[in-house]
Amino acid sequence: MSFRHIAIIGLGLLGGSIGLAVAEHLPGAKTTGWDLSPDTRQRAAARGLVGHVAASAAEAVTGADLVIFCVPPGAMGAAAAEVASALDPQAVVSDVGSCKVSVAKALADALPGHNPALIIPAHPVAGTENSGPDAGFAALFKGRWCIITPPQINGADTAAPANVERLAAFWRALGSTTEVMEAAHHDLVLAVTSHLPHLIAYTIVGTASDLEAVTEGEVIKYSAGGFRDFTRIAASDPTMWRDVFLSNKDAVLDMLQRFTEDLTALQRAIRVGDGEALFTHFERTRAIRRGIIEMGQDDARPDFGRGDH
Amino acid sequence: MSFRHIAIIGLGLLGGSIGLAVAEHLPGAKTTGWDLSPDTRQRAAARGLVGHVAASAAEAVTGADLVIFCVPPGAMGAAAAEVASALDPQAVVSDVGSCKVSVAKALADALPGHNPALIIPAHPVAGTENSGPDAGFAALFKGRWCIITPPQINGADTAAPANVERLAAFWRALGSTTEVMEAAHHDLVLAVTSHLPHLIAYTIVGTASDLEAVTEGEVIKYSAGGFRDFTRIAASDPTMWRDVFLSNKDAVLDMLQRFTEDLTALQRAIRVGDGEALFTHFERTRAIRRGIIEMGQDDARPDFGRGDH
Repeated sequence: MSFRHIAIIGLGLLGGSIGLAVAEHLPGAKTTGWDLSPDTRQRAAARGLVGHVAASAAEAVTGADLVIFCVPPGAMGAAAAEVASALDPQAVVSDVGSCKVSVAKALADALPGHNPALIIPAHPVAGTENSGPDAGFAALFKGRWCIITPPQINGADTAAPANVERLAAFWRALGSTTEVMEAAHHDLVLAVTSHLPHLIAYTIVGTASDLEAVTEGEVIKYSAGGFRDFTRIAASDPTMWRDVFLSNKDAVLDMLQRFTEDLTALQRAIRVGDGEALFTHFERTRAIRRGIIEMGQDDARPDFGRGDH
Repeated sequence: MSFRHIAIIGLGLLGGSIGLAVAEHLPGAKTTGWDLSPDTRQRAAARGLVGHVAASAAEAVTGADLVIFCVPPGAMGAAAAEVASALDPQAVVSDVGSCKVSVAKALADALPGHNPALIIPAHPVAGTENSGPDAGFAALFKGRWCIITPPQINGADTAAPANVERLAAFWRALGSTTEVMEAAHHDLVLAVTSHLPHLIAYTIVGTASDLEAVTEGEVIKYSAGGFRDFTRIAASDPTMWRDVFLSNKDAVLDMLQRFTEDLTALQRAIRVGDGEALFTHFERTRAIRRGIIEMGQDDARPDFGRGDH
C-alpha cells in the first residue's frame, strides 16, 4: 500500500528534498512536480528534483496517489484550489507546512469535493537556512521528526488509520521518525521550538543593523562571540516566515509574552546586580542541551562542529 | 622582542587553548600556569596545557614577561592581587575577558605598584559552549579577531606602543587578527555581538523549560526547528556569564532596550496581521549573514555544516 506516484507542488528546499529522497529511498515510485516560478521549474528539471516537471499544477497531480504541497503556509489554499479538479478521488493530500491548524483548514476549504479523511497534514521538522530549488538534498529528513496531524472531524479522528500509516511509512522511508499529534498541540509545540526562535533571531539581527554607535562592519567582524549563530536562522525565507507568524498568531503571541516576562526578570536582575538570580537561571539551561544531544537532534561537537576552527 | 615566558592564570577553555596554541606556534616560549581549582590544575598537567603547572599563582608568574589572566571578569581583581608581589616590573599584564572597562579597572586597582602602561587588556573573540581544562584546543583562535584595549591614562594612550605591538604579535602568532580599540567602544560592540545574544539564548531556553502545555521532552524532540541553536550558547559557563552581565551592565541594558523595542514592533505586526512589515524586516537581515560568511567568520555550509545530516 505504499505510494506509487507522488506529486510535489512547490519545488524549493522542502519539495526538492522530498523528490531527491524519494529517488534515493523509493526508487520504484514516480515523482512529478510543479512550481509557480518558471525559474524554479527550470532549475528543478535541471537538477532532476522530480522525475517530471509538469506544465501545470493540475498536470502534476494527475494520477498521483499522494500529493504534497510544499509552499508557504499562506499559499496552501490557492495551490490546492488549482489542482482540485484534477485530483484523483483516492489521493492522499498532505503538506509540509510549519503551522497545522491553519493549513488543515486552508486545504479542506480549497478541496470541498475531496474526502476530508484523505487530507492529512504533516510537518517534517527539518530544514536549513537556504531556500529555493538549489537548496534541497536527499538526506534532509534523515534522523528528523515528522509530525502528522490527522484531521479532526466532529471531534473524532475520521482519517482512515490505514492512510495515516501509509503517510507515516512514506516519511519513515525518507529517514524520518514519525509522530501523530493534534494540530493545535503541534502549533503550540512549534511556536516554542521553531517560531519564537526565528522571530527572536530576526529581531536581534535587525537591532544590530540599526545601531548608530556600532557599525555593521563591526557587528560582522566580531560576530563569533555569539551573534553569528542568530544570523543563520535569520537568513531563512522571508515569505515563508511571514506566513508562519500570521498563520500561528495566537500560539506565537502566547510564547512571546512568556519570553518577554522572563527577559524582563533577567533585565531586572542585571539592573539591580542580582548575580545569584542570573547564575541560578544560567545553570539550569544546560540540561536541555544535553537532552537534545542525547536524542541525536544536534551535533555533540563544540560549536556544532563548525569547519572554521 | 617576542615573549619568552608566558604565565597563564586560569586554565579553562581560554587559558588552556592559549597554552596549547603557544606550544604549537611559539615552541621556543616557556609556559607556566595556575588555577584556583586543584582538579583543574591536575587535568591541566595531565593534558600538558602549559609546560609547568605551578604550586601557586605567585610561582606561576615569577620570571614571566607576559601574564594573561583567563578567569571570569568578576575574579580578575582577586587573581591579580594574588600575584602582585611576585610580578616582574617589566611584565606585560593582559587578560581575555569579555568586558574591558571593568576588567581594566580591576587589574589596575589590584596592581597599584605596576607600571600602568604595561597593563594591556585584550579580548580574543573566540570560544565554544564548553568550559574547563578539557575544553581547550590549539586552533581556537585561528581566524578569529583579538581586540586589544590599551589603557587610557589622563585621556592619552600611554601604553608604550611597542608593548601593544608585542601583545598583538603574540596573538597573531596564535592565528588571530588583531585590532586596537577603546575599552568603552569594545564593551558596546560586544554587548550586541556577544552579550545580548547570550542573554536572549539563556532566556528562551528557560522559557521553553517552564511551559505547562508543552513538555520538556517535546521541546527536545522538535528542537531542530531552530530552538537547538539557542541551546548551544545557553550551555556556556554560568559563572563567566553572570560576571559579564554584571560587569557590562550599562551597555547590555542599552542593547536590551533597543532589542525589546524592535521585538515589540514585530509583535504588534503579528497581532494586527501586518504581513508587509514582517516581510520587509525579514528580508533585510540576510545581508549581514552574507557579510559574516564573506569575512570568514562563519561556516558557509547550510546549517553550519552540522554533521547530523
